[in-house]
Amino acid sequence: MRAGEIIAIGSELLLGGRLDTNSLFLTEQLASVGVEVRFKSVVGDVEADIAAAIRTAARRAKVVVLTGGLGPTRDDCTRHAVARLTGRPLRRRPEAMESMRRRLAEWGRTPTGPQLRQALIPSGAEVLVNPVGSAPGFCLSWRGCLVVALPGVPAEAERTFAGSVAPKLALDSTVKERLERRVLHTFGLPESDVEGRLAGVVRAGSGVRLGLLASPLGVTVSLTAWRQHVSDLDRLARRVRVRLGQSVYAEGKDTMEEVVGRHLAAHHLTLAVAESCTGGLVGHRLTQVSGSSTYLDRVAVCYSNRAKVDLLGIPEALIRRHGAVS
Amino acid sequence: MRAGEIIAIGSELLLGGRLDTNSLFLTEQLASVGVEVRFKSVVGDVEADIAAAIRTAARRAKVVVLTGGLGPTRDDCTRHAVARLTGRPLRRRPEAMESMRRRLAEWGRTPTGPQLRQALIPSGAEVLVNPVGSAPGFCLSWRGCLVVALPGVPAEAERTFAGSVAPKLALDSTVKERLERRVLHTFGLPESDVEGRLAGVVRAGSGVRLGLLASPLGVTVSLTAWRQHVSDLDRLARRVRVRLGQSVYAEGKDTMEEVVGRHLAAHHLTLAVAESCTGGLVGHRLTQVSGSSTYLDRVAVCYSNRAKVDLLGIPEALIRRHGAVS
Repeated sequence: MRAGEIIAIGSELLLGGRLDTNSLFLTEQLASVGVEVRFKSVVGDVEADIAAAIRTAARRAKVVVLTGGLGPTRDDCTRHAVARLTGRPLRRRPEAMESMRRRLAEWGRTPTGPQLRQALIPSGAEVLVNPVGSAPGFCLSWRGCLVVALPGVPAEAERTFAGSVAPKLALDSTVKERLERRVLHTFGLPESDVEGRLAGVVRAGSGVRLGLLASPLGVTVSLTAWRQHVSDLDRLARRVRVRLGQSVYAEGKDTMEEVVGRHLAAHHLTLAVAESCTGGLVGHRLTQVSGSSTYLDRVAVCYSNRAKVDLLGIPEALIRRHGAVS
Repeated sequence: MRAGEIIAIGSELLLGGRLDTNSLFLTEQLASVGVEVRFKSVVGDVEADIAAAIRTAARRAKVVVLTGGLGPTRDDCTRHAVARLTGRPLRRRPEAMESMRRRLAEWGRTPTGPQLRQALIPSGAEVLVNPVGSAPGFCLSWRGCLVVALPGVPAEAERTFAGSVAPKLALDSTVKERLERRVLHTFGLPESDVEGRLAGVVRAGSGVRLGLLASPLGVTVSLTAWRQHVSDLDRLARRVRVRLGQSVYAEGKDTMEEVVGRHLAAHHLTLAVAESCTGGLVGHRLTQVSGSSTYLDRVAVCYSNRAKVDLLGIPEALIRRHGAVS
């Protein structure tokens, strides 16, 4: 397993209230090609700070992935930081120009002066095609470490990584270990009950790590192991399923609203939802599933007593007797 | 202005799909007492990795704030990492025991064996009272840097910081600079239009930084300056308001749904919402505001044609002629 680090770049990720979300999918994707992320960091749009972060990371890791700071504005200085740190001067690269022109032409535009800055790439670096945006990424080897620079927009970072970086990392034949995971989602049991029911399932030294993650949406159970233990993983996942029974409502990336939707669609049922205090949350989650209009008929959020009477046919006398929120 | 760093600790913040949200409010609160966060990092529950992260941060910063890894389970090893790195052995501290016992007694419980581990604090460190949870924080000086360890649960981190750490940092009379911000929220203008309208408002070298942050909810404009420029800040904020006119719908922490709610309440109006493709998002956001039941009567999410006819009284012929989503 190679050690990896992720550095998210952008002053809005410090003071500005925005969180780095790219590192979530990057960590998963890196693990699946044998790179374990041990440190993540966030740094503002300051050339010296970016360089310091890369220097620290490159000392500890074999793969350092940067996201952000490749755009057209003055504060986007990731490429300058990499160029200065590694001693590889920026050059306007024809392949970067070409992919940028092509992308902008699809949107009926031609590159502006600032956008042309996006084609500046450290010399000797490989240009990474950005299939969904204008700023290309790049990667280069420095002091035994692969430094990868990706755009900051999540879809662009994800597509550039999956298209150009993951295949390159997967090709490394010296890497025998890849991380595999099984994730089971439960609802209705507190974390301590889940922990109790799973006691003894994973033995110490088995090479499999058991993780519990509690949230208002339930407790998620994860089993993580290197690929050589993958048969254990499936055996253990079966055992977890038995121990937790009906509390497991979904696995992997599946969500509760998708599971509910599939059951409804399979049985040709339609659904009408009446909400009060939940304020439309149930309906909102159900409608997040693509194709939900085939089974979701309507949602009525009834905040006033009048709405409860009008839309749900609740007798006024009943509300008067018990109150609206009883 | 003192340089600060935040280190979030927990393996679930790497592989596990959870994001560090504590750094958002910590960065704001640190700025308001004269500490500028230039780096944030995330590290797993690995003692050596935590120690490495603190060592790197303490070289660059005067204040290093850790969150997470102070709990009762085996993988919580922040206190061990700090103790080993700084050479201050862990001791069970009476004041930490006392506050833990008191908190648990409020919940009708007595400390268990694992919970008692939470009273282990590096010797010479100051114990920080956790007013809303059982694990106390601590802080100590190391190599000219104030190292602060806070619990990971957001409410506990926030309350411990505000109650014990912020007053201590604010007392430092050598600090003349505190960061002040004015934040204005706009809707309806693309980012490039906002940028164009604000051209020349903030002059280079004025000590005020203009920031734009685009999202699906609109473009947010921020003006940031040290306190000695605070009069400029208010003057500039007025100018921004004039340039952007009606596009500014809220300021500071105010949200669109709060502004809408206040207008409705002030005019004694009530609101009924009909949604289709938005799937309840409008209603859900409106009901997030406490007290919204005084003006929100009902929300109808009409996904099926039948629901559009039943609840909204749209003639069937009209839907047939134009389609449901026209």
